[in-house]
Amino acid sequence: MRTYKLTVSYDGTRYQGWQKQQSTDNTIQGILEKAIEKTAGYPVEVNGSGRTDAGVHAKGQTVSICLSGKVSETKFQESLNLKLPEDIRILRAELMKNGFHARYSASGKCYEYHIDTKEKQGVFGRRYSFHYPKYLNQTSMKKAAEILTGTHDFGAFTDKKEEKSTRRTIYDIMIAGQGGEVRIEYRGNGFLYHMVRILTGTLLDAGTGKLSMEDIYSALETGRREKAGFTAPAKGLFLKEVYY
Amino acid sequence: MRTYKLTVSYDGTRYQGWQKQQSTDNTIQGILEKAIEKTAGYPVEVNGSGRTDAGVHAKGQTVSICLSGKVSETKFQESLNLKLPEDIRILRAELMKNGFHARYSASGKCYEYHIDTKEKQGVFGRRYSFHYPKYLNQTSMKKAAEILTGTHDFGAFTDKKEEKSTRRTIYDIMIAGQGGEVRIEYRGNGFLYHMVRILTGTLLDAGTGKLSMEDIYSALETGRREKAGFTAPAKGLFLKEVYY
Repeated sequence: MRTYKLTVSYDGTRYQGWQKQQSTDNTIQGILEKAIEKTAGYPVEVNGSGRTDAGVHAKGQTVSICLSGKVSETKFQESLNLKLPEDIRILRAELMKNGFHARYSASGKCYEYHIDTKEKQGVFGRRYSFHYPKYLNQTSMKKAAEILTGTHDFGAFTDKKEEKSTRRTIYDIMIAGQGGEVRIEYRGNGFLYHMVRILTGTLLDAGTGKLSMEDIYSALETGRREKAGFTAPAKGLFLKEVYY
Repeated sequence: MRTYKLTVSYDGTRYQGWQKQQSTDNTIQGILEKAIEKTAGYPVEVNGSGRTDAGVHAKGQTVSICLSGKVSETKFQESLNLKLPEDIRILRAELMKNGFHARYSASGKCYEYHIDTKEKQGVFGRRYSFHYPKYLNQTSMKKAAEILTGTHDFGAFTDKKEEKSTRRTIYDIMIAGQGGEVRIEYRGNGFLYHMVRILTGTLLDAGTGKLSMEDIYSALETGRREKAGFTAPAKGLFLKEVYY
């Protein structure tokens, strides 16, 4: 058996998220496993770097798979792309050392969030950005981002009761705005359930003045969900890269 | 009766073109007329600046309509947008002088064409660009564009037998390329059926070396369709602006 890493891009619009489910065939993991089974000729387990919610997109999700015998990466990738719908694409296939695992070997991730602040939502970005037609004070957003950067207990920044540690490190948050569009990029060693979407809601609330810098300190200190901002919608979110 | 101009943006992907047809309800003109009838309370004829083919998009198509009585432009626009699907949006509604007609009053148009030259087609641009993974010599494309600019008989640059004059003026053609993407912008006083798509195919053939500059002069001189380049697909094309 040899271990391969696949880098995958997908438009999450019409799927019910990453994770395979009993109740539906319409998940990205499920569709990938079927296409890989057809290509390889036997069932193959697909391990993703992590789940993405329904509607979330990926520019660089990664998965690990084990295949028996020798496989040409290029041919395998091409043959797989022919079997996949056009909104799921394999960007790269690479032979890895045995023991590589898309999730457990990952050292960090990068996410991108797109916000459309124009008065009317653009027709072409409607699936790929959150329409939020408000004035955003970018100085306040950047101050809030500075407070959130670093190693903290992010217990207030998840929508799930976590049993394990909610301590994570955010390496940096980059905010760039121009022409009615704001993009936020997050790099960190790991993110909790809904964490990037709640961080985004918190930064937007800082930008409109709904949350003060004190509120953000207080969210980090108390770990209480209601102290942080809202959960921004899935469709503006992209998993950009997984680091190893 | 008062005359209004509406500026409309649409994603042409799931429609059978602009023009109303007996055989289908799925045209942009047809859907606009139904929504306007619901908003106004009586049937209203929608006159577009011109047709767009199935799959072609618009960032600024214009239409003229006549409404009886006084209408608040903002309210009319908002109420209309509530009735329209999210891939058709009214960007502006303006009261015009009587006699204004979206098509006959137009002095020119601007079209944009998007080409994705990356080896693998990007997932997010797949509806909005033509995937053409070839090396394009931009110097040759720009030379060809210079030859095509100006007033010429564009008889070789249409897929329809035209009964009227095929003489048109192209004001300018701008070619910009970066990061695996090429955009071509065309401004002119009017364009024949498929003309922008054939101009694009011709510029791409000049970029790959399939057509020489002599071939392009010869297409203009002979008016023979087979001398010009191929008809580039609809999905890369955007009607950007109509000039008055």
